[in-house]
Amino acid sequence: MKAEEKYLGLVQKQNHYNQALSLLAWDARTGAPKKGAAQRSEVIGTLSSDVFALSTSNEMNELLSELENEKDSLSEITAKSIEESRKDYDRNTKIPAEEFKEYVTLQSQTETLWEDAKDQSDFDMFRPNLEKLIEFKKRFIGYYGEDTGHVYNTLLDDYEPGVFVDTIDEVFAELRNNLVPLVQAVTESSHQPKMDSLFAHFPKANQQALSKDILKEIGFDFSAGRMDETVHPFAMGINPYDVRVTTKYNESDFRVSLFGTIHEGGHALYEQNISPELMGTPLCGGTSMGIHESQSLFWEKFVGQNMAFWERNYPLLKKHANGQFDHVSLEDFYFAVNQAKPSLIRIEADELTYCLHIILRYELEKALIEGSLAAKDLPHVWNEKMVEYLGVKPSNDGEGVLQDVHWSFGSFGYFPSYALGYIYAAQLKESFTKTNPNFDDLIRQGDYAPIRQYMTENVHQFGRGKKPADILKDTTGSGIDAKPLIHYLKDKYTTLYKL
Amino acid sequence: MKAEEKYLGLVQKQNHYNQALSLLAWDARTGAPKKGAAQRSEVIGTLSSDVFALSTSNEMNELLSELENEKDSLSEITAKSIEESRKDYDRNTKIPAEEFKEYVTLQSQTETLWEDAKDQSDFDMFRPNLEKLIEFKKRFIGYYGEDTGHVYNTLLDDYEPGVFVDTIDEVFAELRNNLVPLVQAVTESSHQPKMDSLFAHFPKANQQALSKDILKEIGFDFSAGRMDETVHPFAMGINPYDVRVTTKYNESDFRVSLFGTIHEGGHALYEQNISPELMGTPLCGGTSMGIHESQSLFWEKFVGQNMAFWERNYPLLKKHANGQFDHVSLEDFYFAVNQAKPSLIRIEADELTYCLHIILRYELEKALIEGSLAAKDLPHVWNEKMVEYLGVKPSNDGEGVLQDVHWSFGSFGYFPSYALGYIYAAQLKESFTKTNPNFDDLIRQGDYAPIRQYMTENVHQFGRGKKPADILKDTTGSGIDAKPLIHYLKDKYTTLYKL
Repeated sequence: MKAEEKYLGLVQKQNHYNQALSLLAWDARTGAPKKGAAQRSEVIGTLSSDVFALSTSNEMNELLSELENEKDSLSEITAKSIEESRKDYDRNTKIPAEEFKEYVTLQSQTETLWEDAKDQSDFDMFRPNLEKLIEFKKRFIGYYGEDTGHVYNTLLDDYEPGVFVDTIDEVFAELRNNLVPLVQAVTESSHQPKMDSLFAHFPKANQQALSKDILKEIGFDFSAGRMDETVHPFAMGINPYDVRVTTKYNESDFRVSLFGTIHEGGHALYEQNISPELMGTPLCGGTSMGIHESQSLFWEKFVGQNMAFWERNYPLLKKHANGQFDHVSLEDFYFAVNQAKPSLIRIEADELTYCLHIILRYELEKALIEGSLAAKDLPHVWNEKMVEYLGVKPSNDGEGVLQDVHWSFGSFGYFPSYALGYIYAAQLKESFTKTNPNFDDLIRQGDYAPIRQYMTENVHQFGRGKKPADILKDTTGSGIDAKPLIHYLKDKYTTLYKL
Repeated sequence: MKAEEKYLGLVQKQNHYNQALSLLAWDARTGAPKKGAAQRSEVIGTLSSDVFALSTSNEMNELLSELENEKDSLSEITAKSIEESRKDYDRNTKIPAEEFKEYVTLQSQTETLWEDAKDQSDFDMFRPNLEKLIEFKKRFIGYYGEDTGHVYNTLLDDYEPGVFVDTIDEVFAELRNNLVPLVQAVTESSHQPKMDSLFAHFPKANQQALSKDILKEIGFDFSAGRMDETVHPFAMGINPYDVRVTTKYNESDFRVSLFGTIHEGGHALYEQNISPELMGTPLCGGTSMGIHESQSLFWEKFVGQNMAFWERNYPLLKKHANGQFDHVSLEDFYFAVNQAKPSLIRIEADELTYCLHIILRYELEKALIEGSLAAKDLPHVWNEKMVEYLGVKPSNDGEGVLQDVHWSFGSFGYFPSYALGYIYAAQLKESFTKTNPNFDDLIRQGDYAPIRQYMTENVHQFGRGKKPADILKDTTGSGIDAKPLIHYLKDKYTTLYKL
């Protein structure tokens, strides 16, 4: 057997284990019995070890070395796949096994500790572990030994390959400088939405039916996917033909399920439209967290919170609701679901203020990793920045620095991708409207096919075979650029809030 | 590492793959997206190959040989486990790989062919493949080379280890000789149940709620299991802490879900009460198809179709139903759900006539395998026996010899376990009532704990660690015996039908 064939067999096997692992994860989060947790962990452990063993095997290393020497004769898919496998191999072999084991143990201890610390709003309880995690991360960066100009770049590479600190610094600064005064103006505006109508009782079964209708509306393929209930919503692509969306229901706030479903639906459209040719290879997945988030945000914000969408779908919402909107005008409804208001909690933030939450976290975690900020100073600096960017101040660390789970499992470098997702989404929308200036008309007519087609052609189909920067360059002709997002937000909120 | 430890590691790994495979199977039957079928098959293929490779590896063979030589020093669990692993090893290595592959291909072709043949009631379409499957089976029996006195015994061993043709012949003959005249008398009785009330519209959501209540009622542990909807109901023990029941709903016949749920609930109680010590070993499962069926039938028939059960639960049923039983007396209801009436289709048969369907199949498949019956004569003999045993005659092969899927995938030796399940259940019930003559009182009070405890102590806890014959001997003091079932059916139906 040729090396290429052998290699493709190995990665296909990894992929099959990963599909089984995905199903186990989906199951665990959608109703698997509690008492089965320990056994499930063991099964997950066995399959994960298999994946790890395959990715770090001598056979893998030898095949990769052989294939790297004959790159020109390989298919494009194989050529790109071996880059992913090499990265995987390096990442997984450069850290001494013992040390990695310690780290994994610390991760899981810290996640549990974080829950308690958050409940008790006690940052000092959490701090020693956080410091240890940061030390581990710094050491790991050393082991990787990549020369990327800034220690944080190595972490970014896990989530947003090819995007570096200097770009993010520049783009985030521009965004921050424009958003802070806009948020302040919105806050001070005398024209504010009437929110009461949103919070009437909206039965779960009706919300479920609405969510299903809306997923169909935007083009989610139910013959290649399903929709379930969960506590922490997510979308999961087991493979392009099996993509699962989950939603949670709040009977006194339908927005949670409605916009949550559209958001996860956006992720799902990405996964469903990856080229089937990539199945079984390391390329079969989203290319980065940021690009993935651009797809969910595109549908949630630029479609789902668009006036044209509600001109079309307000009757559908009314049909499923229990009469709560019968006396609410479309304009009042639209203003209410687009309320912008500084708040303390990231995951509850609206589209105007959200990026400021992210920029704050980015600045802090970069400083932690480069050593210019000590963990002990985190709560203080957090609170200062909250006041500076959003004009609100946490009354305790539970609603401040302890609110997010990410750092508790050592996830540094992840946060920026949320704001990058907004930025990319706005760039993609702008480039789409260059050739399709009738964007709002398409939505008003429910004619989403051209939008999906654009995203599939320019983003989805490539899976991991095209890097974020290349996607942006080929679609927008430029690099990462905050301007489209800034224009969009300024236009929308200046009008809405009569600034 | 000691051989025992190594061996336990190997079977644990097999078990973990099997748990993942179970979840994949559950998922495929409870709403997995259609388009994912091909990928899912590939994942299943990879994991199944892993299990097969482990079970037939040289390492496994060597460890087994080593452990077989030091049986006395092994734990009881290991000693019994290696017997299972050895059987597995032998079964999986004795058939030449090429031939087995041909057989698997034939199996899957024939299952598809069977569907068409059944739809078209065309036995001749199905016959050539059936003949080939029988030839394969006979050759396989030869390869196994076990001297068990009758070729069919080797097939029985897959489903009912330790139970042989001579016993079954004797027990089934006794049962048949007693049932045929009883069925005839019931058919001819002028006292018949009024069935109309059963078929009113019973909304699915209400049936679901009822099914859940009933599962709780009999002691299914929802923290170690879940209940879902499916087309072909089943229960599945992924492990004792994760046991899944499925049900289908017919809105114009609530019996399908209600009694189906109790039936699967009986299987599930078995799986939930296997000793957790057996987890990760080949012993963690039901000991035979017959014993498994005894548990589902025990709960479905001896509990769920018991008057005492309805004295307690008729109000619950009425609560969930849409008024359909408001004017039906408990006695009329009880008679209706215990209607006994010869019919053509096995899976729709009642508890009185069911075993005759099985005995017929047993007689035919044994004759096919021993060569005393040619496949071409099957429809004719089938129809003759239907008339002889049940007094009804299929008008075509779709409702006759082609009705069951089993033979289409080469499953010969499976059918008897359904009737053995009835026989075992009656034996277990009789032995329970020897020390607990208040069986009906317990049910009337909803005090199922002593029943569950009895089943756990005598059946469930052992998993595959105790063979069917030993279970019967230790609980009832005898071998397989049709008399308890015959007494039960005679008593019950003589009274019901005023014979």
